[in-house]
Amino acid sequence: MSIKVPFSELKETAKKAFLNLGLSEEKAELCATIHTESSADGVESHGMNRIPRFAEYVQQGLIDVNAEPELVSAKGACENYDGHMGVGVVNAVFCADRAAELAKEHGIGLVALKNTTHWMRGGAYAWRMAYKGYFGISWINTESCMPMWGSDEASVGNNPFCMAIPREKGPIVVDMAMSQYAYGKLGVYRLAGKELPYPGGFDKDGNLTSDPGAIEESKRILPTGYWKGSSLSIALDLAAAMLANGRTGLDMDLANEGSCGGCCQIFIAINPYLFGEKDATQAKLDARVAAADAAHPLDPKHPVRCPGESTIARREASMRDGVTVDEQIYAQIQQLAAGDLNVTDIASK
Amino acid sequence: MSIKVPFSELKETAKKAFLNLGLSEEKAELCATIHTESSADGVESHGMNRIPRFAEYVQQGLIDVNAEPELVSAKGACENYDGHMGVGVVNAVFCADRAAELAKEHGIGLVALKNTTHWMRGGAYAWRMAYKGYFGISWINTESCMPMWGSDEASVGNNPFCMAIPREKGPIVVDMAMSQYAYGKLGVYRLAGKELPYPGGFDKDGNLTSDPGAIEESKRILPTGYWKGSSLSIALDLAAAMLANGRTGLDMDLANEGSCGGCCQIFIAINPYLFGEKDATQAKLDARVAAADAAHPLDPKHPVRCPGESTIARREASMRDGVTVDEQIYAQIQQLAAGDLNVTDIASK
Repeated sequence: MSIKVPFSELKETAKKAFLNLGLSEEKAELCATIHTESSADGVESHGMNRIPRFAEYVQQGLIDVNAEPELVSAKGACENYDGHMGVGVVNAVFCADRAAELAKEHGIGLVALKNTTHWMRGGAYAWRMAYKGYFGISWINTESCMPMWGSDEASVGNNPFCMAIPREKGPIVVDMAMSQYAYGKLGVYRLAGKELPYPGGFDKDGNLTSDPGAIEESKRILPTGYWKGSSLSIALDLAAAMLANGRTGLDMDLANEGSCGGCCQIFIAINPYLFGEKDATQAKLDARVAAADAAHPLDPKHPVRCPGESTIARREASMRDGVTVDEQIYAQIQQLAAGDLNVTDIASK
Repeated sequence: MSIKVPFSELKETAKKAFLNLGLSEEKAELCATIHTESSADGVESHGMNRIPRFAEYVQQGLIDVNAEPELVSAKGACENYDGHMGVGVVNAVFCADRAAELAKEHGIGLVALKNTTHWMRGGAYAWRMAYKGYFGISWINTESCMPMWGSDEASVGNNPFCMAIPREKGPIVVDMAMSQYAYGKLGVYRLAGKELPYPGGFDKDGNLTSDPGAIEESKRILPTGYWKGSSLSIALDLAAAMLANGRTGLDMDLANEGSCGGCCQIFIAINPYLFGEKDATQAKLDARVAAADAAHPLDPKHPVRCPGESTIARREASMRDGVTVDEQIYAQIQQLAAGDLNVTDIASK
């Protein structure tokens, strides 16, 4: 079902697909890189798997491949861009880079982006800020897909929140949606005939359950940390719409322009060595990470790892052995690359 | 066991206690206000209940009541303060206010505080920034009290993260520790002979459990959202120590100077109307909150509420009916107010 494809081959195929969808050379190169990197890092769900849906959205007019992010206003260390429903990855990369540039000048930089489209792997932009040498925070608001705590109907987004600490030995990166599991993950477990490792929602009778099919049926997916994830998610939604002067999750529900259609995204970059000397700071971070990793493991075969460390190990394996991609997805991307745009989004079905 | 005391009486009693512990008039007034407000808001655990432990810490020399926050360095929209192991509440209020002042000038402001002590209720400073009209983010790093995901020994802090959105109708405020339940909460349930409402940790055999005593025994408290809370917590620790040029959780473990002794705290304030007009922004936030609150409730007697809304209702009840305080705790505070400083921290035992 899954095959391994060399990174460069996968990226070139994806790039041809993006070019055939009308993206410029520069945008196609960037999107192909980001999508392939996401799959190489083990985030297939928001890497290669998303290209067919992207193709659908472009053809449905939900994404304008020719739009460019436009500066609406700038104040102090803060800038506001209108994404004009352009390619989400392109807009988000632009804004993450601007946040880093603002941080270079002001110590901290904030970019608030509105009217953009799905940024695919949320963590991509925090990783990017960290590799540029900045502490990065980013989040997005989405259409409603999860019940607020105390409700049984979808009433808030899963609004991923990301944070990356730059480190010479590799960034420490958090990339977390406010739902405990994505619906895509539930489908993967259900099709494999497996229970979730931990409860992921409620069944239609209101019992906490690890049965993925029962959660898909009730649509009562569990917020990360019960009431906590529900609370943080509505706050992230409000904050994003407020700062970017754009759509809330409610506005997106009403507009109904696809997943994350017209969403807001926030990018904050901070110079990590404003007050500490670089070498000493790096040594301190390394000591903290090493201590966490040395915590007594439940299973000696699975030592503790800080977030991001396993991603880098996975990436190295992908570069060495090829990037894992679903055979059917790769066939679809090859089809797009050959100029046949008639694909359907199988990954989220 | 619990009694209700008028806000002003409780605050005046607390103030006398703080004065007797050596705090200046100004610091005693501030600390009494914050601790009483926390109890009035329903956060007794970090309000009145913490005063006996604070008294212990002062007498043990873990808190220097005469220390003042000192500006170490300022760059662009960012400032770094040394708390000199002073009163945590005093240092944190000062830094939250400075962040708001920096945001007034630069659109966004960052204050990174090091060498400070326990800030009591984490959300107090986000609430404060919101009432000053700013979007506030704050977090702290703590000594290790929770296992990293995949471990069975305490290896990371519970590092609360707070976020507040200013709203004319009352701020929306998240105040969340990275452990699903505090140890204090486990004790409350155990003493009441109750199960936790949802699983809160693992028993000594590694089974997920809602039995508070079994978790206290194993010390395997559950991170908020399983692996997610563990990941965010280590990232918040690293980020706080990096930005403030201060101690990591590991450094605190080694120094062993009490709960949050020598910790770092981060305060970010942002002008919420940088890019949107105030009335339109407020109307948009209100519409989003109203839609979330209107989500179909599981129980019609418990409508959905966004975080912070119930707190305000609780506060209003406290101002009307008196603030709920544990009888023994109040006796201790009265004892301190009468000049007898020989109290012990019963709340966390």
